[in-house]
Amino acid sequence: MENQVIVEHIFLLVIVTLFSVLQNAFFAVKLEREGKSGCATSFDRVSCAVRNCMDAYPTFLAVMWCAGLCVSQAPAAFAGVLYLIVRHKYFVGYMGQTSQSTPGYVFGKRPILFLILMCMVGILNYLMAYFLGRCYKAQLKTVTSLTASLLLIP
Amino acid sequence: MENQVIVEHIFLLVIVTLFSVLQNAFFAVKLEREGKSGCATSFDRVSCAVRNCMDAYPTFLAVMWCAGLCVSQAPAAFAGVLYLIVRHKYFVGYMGQTSQSTPGYVFGKRPILFLILMCMVGILNYLMAYFLGRCYKAQLKTVTSLTASLLLIP
Amino acid sequence: MENQVIVEHIFLLVIVTLFSVLQNAFFAVKLEREGKSGCATSFDRVSCAVRNCMDAYPTFLAVMWCAGLCVSQAPAAFAGVLYLIVRHKYFVGYMGQTSQSTPGYVFGKRPILFLILMCMVGILNYLMAYFLGRCYKAQLKTVTSLTASLLLIP
Repeated sequence: MENQVIVEHIFLLVIVTLFSVLQNAFFAVKLEREGKSGCATSFDRVSCAVRNCMDAYPTFLAVMWCAGLCVSQAPAAFAGVLYLIVRHKYFVGYMGQTSQSTPGYVFGKRPILFLILMCMVGILNYLMAYFLGRCYKAQLKTVTSLTASLLLIP
Repeated sequence: MENQVIVEHIFLLVIVTLFSVLQNAFFAVKLEREGKSGCATSFDRVSCAVRNCMDAYPTFLAVMWCAGLCVSQAPAAFAGVLYLIVRHKYFVGYMGQTSQSTPGYVFGKRPILFLILMCMVGILNYLMAYFLGRCYKAQLKTVTSLTASLLLIP
Repeated sequence: MENQVIVEHIFLLVIVTLFSVLQNAFFAVKLEREGKSGCATSFDRVSCAVRNCMDAYPTFLAVMWCAGLCVSQAPAAFAGVLYLIVRHKYFVGYMGQTSQSTPGYVFGKRPILFLILMCMVGILNYLMAYFLGRCYKAQLKTVTSLTASLLLIP
């Protein structure tokens, strides 16, 4: 029963994490297949794309889980899904023939920034509740849920 | 006391994480020693093996913790241990002289797949408990514990 | 309210994680800027430094969170901050002109070792509490807090 209570607060985060893991597996399979095809230039490009995605992966996971635990899981999971979509676009764009139009090393700045801000606001709220005795948890959840939808603006 | 309750649900996961960290440290020390020996080809091979292991590491951690939190820690930790053994074999195999027999980029598919399935089943069970009011948590724990032993089949 | 209880036990860890994420973002921006400048040797050096930092990042996160959850968050967060400082020094040292004086692949050994020991002691304490019924949680918190200050010795 204990566990059930914990799962209630994190199940959306777990679902997004699961999707990100499946995406990682997709990347890895893509890379392995490319490695067997023997084409050096396209292997290099895929390898570079996978590596850039993997470099950013722990950062993404850490910030999504922190934001989800500190404030509210729904907007954090939503930003996580957006990040995964951006990452997929980045990966496909990197593999494309028009390598000059590829994005750089950093991608998914907006979802990550949103998650970092969520973390900061959550921590500030906790400190305020601790020191001043005022807690804006409920308002915070509403505001972050509303703000998360702003991420959809291209 | 609060903390003690949390630790009860995760201590096996923490132990496996600790072993994986020690293994990472072993890999890093191996790579550093190789770097000092000055042999370029063997350094390249170790560096490549370490990098492949490290690329898959956050994925492994994420999926093991999610599976452990959502369903039950014992089978998740067991699959984690198996993954660490597979990883060690992969690393040693990669460093070996017979580089043509090295495994590819993806390794430890079976434990990871098992953990992903555990996550999915756990989430499904949570959603069913939420929407339909039926909870198969106890059965789930037994089934996953039994299934985990199937991973031992080579 | 549930969530507030959880946040109480992890807010220091979240803050350190947030700082590490910001540092990662700083590294990534540095690398991207270097990539645009077109100087191959300095790009290689920054890229190598970023990659070494990123290889060790999941290990650091995992061990810090485990230590923080199992024993006490304050010393774990303190060691985390020290690790981030060491990492910054490592990164700057790697980029410097005097590339022969750069540190190797492994860095921040002391904070990581301290966190691993904290994890081990925490798990041992849990097992002792479980099997022998003796719990030294309070003493453990004091001792680790005191030991953490020893990390400051250069």
